[in-house]
Order: sequence, then C-alpha cells, then structure tokens
Amino acid sequence: MLSLQDLRNAHDRIRPFIHRTPCLTCHTLDQMAGATLVFKCENFQKIGAFKARGGMNAALQLADNERKNGLATHSSGNHGQAVAFAARQLGMPAYVVMPRTAPQVKKDAVRGYGATVIECEPNIIAREAGVAAIITQTGAALIHPFDDDRVIAGQSTAAIELIEDNPTGQPFDVIMAPVGGGGLISGTALATHFLAPATRVVGAEPEGAADAILSFKSGHVEKAPYISTIADGLMAPLSERTLGYIRQYVSDIRLVNDVEIRAAQRLVWERMKIIIEPSCAVPLAVVLRYKDEFAGQTIGIILTGGNVDLGNGFTI
Amino acid sequence: MLSLQDLRNAHDRIRPFIHRTPCLTCHTLDQMAGATLVFKCENFQKIGAFKARGGMNAALQLADNERKNGLATHSSGNHGQAVAFAARQLGMPAYVVMPRTAPQVKKDAVRGYGATVIECEPNIIAREAGVAAIITQTGAALIHPFDDDRVIAGQSTAAIELIEDNPTGQPFDVIMAPVGGGGLISGTALATHFLAPATRVVGAEPEGAADAILSFKSGHVEKAPYISTIADGLMAPLSERTLGYIRQYVSDIRLVNDVEIRAAQRLVWERMKIIIEPSCAVPLAVVLRYKDEFAGQTIGIILTGGNVDLGNGFTI
Repeated sequence: MLSLQDLRNAHDRIRPFIHRTPCLTCHTLDQMAGATLVFKCENFQKIGAFKARGGMNAALQLADNERKNGLATHSSGNHGQAVAFAARQLGMPAYVVMPRTAPQVKKDAVRGYGATVIECEPNIIAREAGVAAIITQTGAALIHPFDDDRVIAGQSTAAIELIEDNPTGQPFDVIMAPVGGGGLISGTALATHFLAPATRVVGAEPEGAADAILSFKSGHVEKAPYISTIADGLMAPLSERTLGYIRQYVSDIRLVNDVEIRAAQRLVWERMKIIIEPSCAVPLAVVLRYKDEFAGQTIGIILTGGNVDLGNGFTI
Repeated sequence: MLSLQDLRNAHDRIRPFIHRTPCLTCHTLDQMAGATLVFKCENFQKIGAFKARGGMNAALQLADNERKNGLATHSSGNHGQAVAFAARQLGMPAYVVMPRTAPQVKKDAVRGYGATVIECEPNIIAREAGVAAIITQTGAALIHPFDDDRVIAGQSTAAIELIEDNPTGQPFDVIMAPVGGGGLISGTALATHFLAPATRVVGAEPEGAADAILSFKSGHVEKAPYISTIADGLMAPLSERTLGYIRQYVSDIRLVNDVEIRAAQRLVWERMKIIIEPSCAVPLAVVLRYKDEFAGQTIGIILTGGNVDLGNGFTI
C-alpha cells in the first residue's frame, strides 16, 4: 500500500525528467457542461502522455544489477514510449512488445527513442507471452504498464500537480481520469485521498472495454463483455492490485460509447485547440453524458495524452 | 505613427477582455531547427486567434456616437470573429462581409457571436464593396482588418507579451510573424522596435500570396503574381500604412510554399499537440526552409490562430 511519502518521493525522483504540465480551462466547454472544468494537460508531457511519469519512476527505482540488461514491457503505445524514453534517459536498451494494431505513430515513436519493437497479436495473453520471451532472452527488467506500485506512484504525480495548481480558487468536487489497466486511476485516487480527501474520484471507461465497471461492482477482476473501442489506450483489464486501489478510493466508474468519445475529442480539438487522443476524451464524454449529475461542480480532468496518428485516412 | 505609449495604452485597454496566452517551447522542434524556438500561442486566444486583440482595441476606442449603430468589417474569418466578439462584449450589433470560400467553421463562429454574415466573392474588391454597402445601409462603424492604427496597436500586444514572457533567458535574435494585410507584422515590428531594438523582425509569407515581399522591395503596394495558398488568412494585400511600418521596422520577408506550410503545420500538431491553422504555420516553415540562416538563434514565433475546419473531407 503506497503512502503519501511514497508519492512525494516519486515526484521528487522524476521531477528533473518530466514537465510540470499546465492546467487549462475553456469557457465554451464550461458553458456546454454547466460546470467548471480544469484540464491537466498531460498531452504536453514528455512522450506526449502521462505514462512518462510512471515509466520514469519505475526505471529510477531499479537497482544497478536490475537495470544492467535494460528495460522490457508490453504496451499499446504510450507506456512503450515511456519505457523507451526512460531507458534512453538512463543510457540503457529497451524492448517493447506492441500489438500489431497499435497506431503507426506510436510504434515509430518507440523506435525513435532507440528501443526495439516486438510486434504481437492484439490481446493480453500474446502481450504477456511476448514480454516473457524477451526477458528470458535478454535479462531485461520488466516495467509493467500498470501492475506495479512504482508505476502507480509515478502516475499519481499528475493528480498531485492538478490539485496543487487548481486555478479556480474552489476545491475540486470531482477528479476524473480514464480507466484502462487502472494505473492512472489508482495513482489519481491515492493522491486525491491523501491531498483532497473530500474530493470524489470518478473513473471514465469506454463501453467497448467495460471490464473495470464490472470488476468494481463484483470485487473480482472481470473480463470486458467485448473489446471494441476507438479508445485504444484503454483496452487492458485491471489487475488485482489496481482493482484493490479502485475499490478502496474511487467513488464511481462511468461508461460512454465511441460516438460520445469521438464527439468529446473533437470538441477539445475545436474549442481548446489542443490535440488529444481518443482515450483521453473519455472523462469529458462522461461529464457531457451525465450532465445533470455534474452540473455546477468543479471538476479536474486528467487529459492523458495526445499521440494521434495523423497519417493516411485520418479523420476526426 | 504609433508610439510606445499608444501600444501600452492598447494593452491596458484590452487586458480585461483577452487572454495572456502562454509561450510554449518544444525540444523536438528545436532539434529539427537547430535553434531555440519560443511559440506565442495566440491559437489559445479568445476567438482562437490574435485578431481578438486588434478588434477589441479598435472597438474600445470608438466614441459613443460612432459605435451606436454597431460594427462592420470584411474578413476571411478570424478578424470577422474578432469584430463579432468585440461587438458582443460591448452589447452592439456586428456585420461581417466574408468571402463565400471562407472555412465553414469561421462563418459559423462569426454567427455564433451573434453577428450577421454577408457572403461575397473571394476578392478584395468584392469585400470592400460589400462592407461599403452594409455601412451605408446600417450606419455601422468600420473596423478594417489591418489598415487602422487602432487595430495595429492591438495586434502589437502579442509581441509585447512574447518579449516580456520570453522563457529562454536569452534575448530574441529574431521575432517572426506571418504577413497577410500586414497588421500583425506592423504591430509586432513596432513593439520589437520599442522594447527589443536589437531583435530582427522577419515576416513570413506564402509564395501563393507573395505581394508583401514585392512591395517591401519596391516601396510601393504591389499585387501578388497569383493568389493560391492553403494559408487562407494571408491573402490580403498590404496597405500604404502597413507597408510604411514594414519598410521602416521589418528586416526581411521570406517566402515558403504550401507543401512546406502543410509540413510545418503537421509538425506542430504532432510534436506540440496543439491545433494551428495553415496561415499560422508559415513562420515555422520559414525557419525550417532557411535553416542555415536561423541556426543557433533564439527565435520568437507568433502562432496566430487555431481555427481549422475539422468537418467533411478534413485531412492534414
């Protein structure tokens, strides 16, 4: 169980390597939501996503003998970039197992940091088998995308900064983050529990990868009924560890569908003039879908990343 | 001739109505350019473009009897929004003559501020005739997009903030802005002349609307050889007024073509995760095209706006 001191230590550890990203507001979106929204812009983070925080913290906590053969992980994209980025910062090799369906821009970015990409089938079993094989082969240290307290402590620092930099003059009623494997929402919920205990934490999940809401209700790690969503960063299931944090510190999980996610993404592009990826738009989609419930509240939203493939056939 | 005090007064006048937009930097773009780039993000400005500054300043300088019938202008888009925005702030009607080819998102935005849009053929003669007709009909006060010292003083405030907020710790070697009718580059050059006289000001112009470079060389207002560019905000020719400021305070004007403009726009989207419109990408395209000349320098770039039509058929 992570303590406040663990989160503070993680923040001190990674601070030289990451950006303190800005908190932006948007009058038009506030009017549409009938609420006061504060967006923590992790799309401006190193590697274009909050994952730089967790990857960097985990890499920095490795002992010398653990890191001597480099880093390994599996990732649909942003965590792969994070591990590749951390490895480059620390002068070591990195091996990233990625689903062959991951956006080309994310594969290119991982390679751009000097890491080796190993492609696999787009399911969790193939991903875990791929990373096990590469570890056997190279002796690299595993940095799991979310089932790791060092990673969760790193991700918590986005919420720490959001709470510290809140520009509204009012405490947050709610802080929201998307839910994939649960690393970010776990860190967010821990930071909020310690620093703003009166604030509710709500997870936002795509209907096309709705495992977390089922697991949250049942208390067991459940499978999603089906996996089909444009939110390509949110397809992983929870782990026992992240489910534990979520059951303890998250107030609720809400679902939205791809049409709502796409509409929210486009609103942010058009109105805030910033690039966010589909996974990143899920919390705003929740605020707009459940508008009556959030009306009048001050809501912090972690915008998780901006790595969009603008190549062939791109539309929004 | 505008004085430093005129620019300071404009800044004080409009400050309650506009954002002090952030200055962003991007390590990847610095590496690509071999220079230190600071981007003044007027895409985050009210109405999504710097034009809010000039429109607001001009509207605020009108006497009561001048503003009683509202405001009128012609615009390819952003200045129309600026005048519509200023009119709404001050509780008066606005009439905006727009080329029928202007992006739908810009027409919608002007209407969204409560203004009346009058469509015309996409050339300067039709635009000026249209606005003359609407003024005769309504008695509205003209706010010209650039041929007006009140507008130029308003636009100068972006450069004032850029110089004041320069995060690099080194003075700018160069400040760059795109050139359309010349309002922004005139204001930018004036502010730089008064506040950072050792800094060169360079205008960036599309090859498909290359009137300013010819006028700059000849000393007379020249026509562009042809008008065809994706930089839809930069098609207007200079006026005698803006040419005068440019000849006095701008060091150079550089051309880039649409392929270079599109590539620079996409780089900003992908690497900085912010939305900019094609006109806005012209200075970065210049830095990358004339790389040897700008290498090693500290360069301030005014990112002018982010109003892009993401509708049917959108690609980047």
